[in-house]
Amino acid sequence: MSKSELPVIGQDDQTECCAPMVREPLGEEVAADLARMFKALSDPVRLRLLSLIASYEGGEACVCDLTGPFDVSQPTISHHLKVLREAGLVGSERRGTWVYYWVVPAALARLSSLLQAPSESVPVGAAT
Amino acid sequence: MSKSELPVIGQDDQTECCAPMVREPLGEEVAADLARMFKALSDPVRLRLLSLIASYEGGEACVCDLTGPFDVSQPTISHHLKVLREAGLVGSERRGTWVYYWVVPAALARLSSLLQAPSESVPVGAAT
Repeated sequence: MSKSELPVIGQDDQTECCAPMVREPLGEEVAADLARMFKALSDPVRLRLLSLIASYEGGEACVCDLTGPFDVSQPTISHHLKVLREAGLVGSERRGTWVYYWVVPAALARLSSLLQAPSESVPVGAAT
Repeated sequence: MSKSELPVIGQDDQTECCAPMVREPLGEEVAADLARMFKALSDPVRLRLLSLIASYEGGEACVCDLTGPFDVSQPTISHHLKVLREAGLVGSERRGTWVYYWVVPAALARLSSLLQAPSESVPVGAAT
């Protein structure tokens, strides 16, 4: 079977946004884009940073609050925040002395939808 | 504030399974475990392999069907499949000549739930 016979997500339209990857094979470009986002999540400190930012009241956190909980240096935290920002997972803004970070809900929602398991994405038609 | 004052997911119970990471800060051990799973997803070929396996009729694919769509060698595909299997994202079984692969729905569901965005994880209480 040639590649062109397979229905591929995200070649000609925007359906790749939120379709579960278990339903149709991912296209190359979409996979490369998503792999970059997952790479940003592939570090424990970055995962904890993202979780910590999102858990703050109001959904945003001052960088001044993000170093304390970790046994790594401020420059390392800054590097991890940069990776998360470049992956589109967090946004940031400087206000006076400090930079504030928040999660980007659409980015998390995209990955969450993509990973929906078969049992979640397939309608239950046949009751047993 | 000391670390112990923060409510941390997955320290003493199994609630880390499916709780969105945007609700409470992730604990160190859970974050390390999840980071390994996301690392397995951080490669475009592995993402496409996982998607391809899940998209096969019946939800499983013979390794003999998984090389064709990729411009990489059979040993490279085997390596990527091993990474996916060790991360708990796919299962496999040899039947006769070939090894068959399937996705592990619980693993995808765990990551999907974890990434639920703030707007998805907060009940909509106030209609406008």
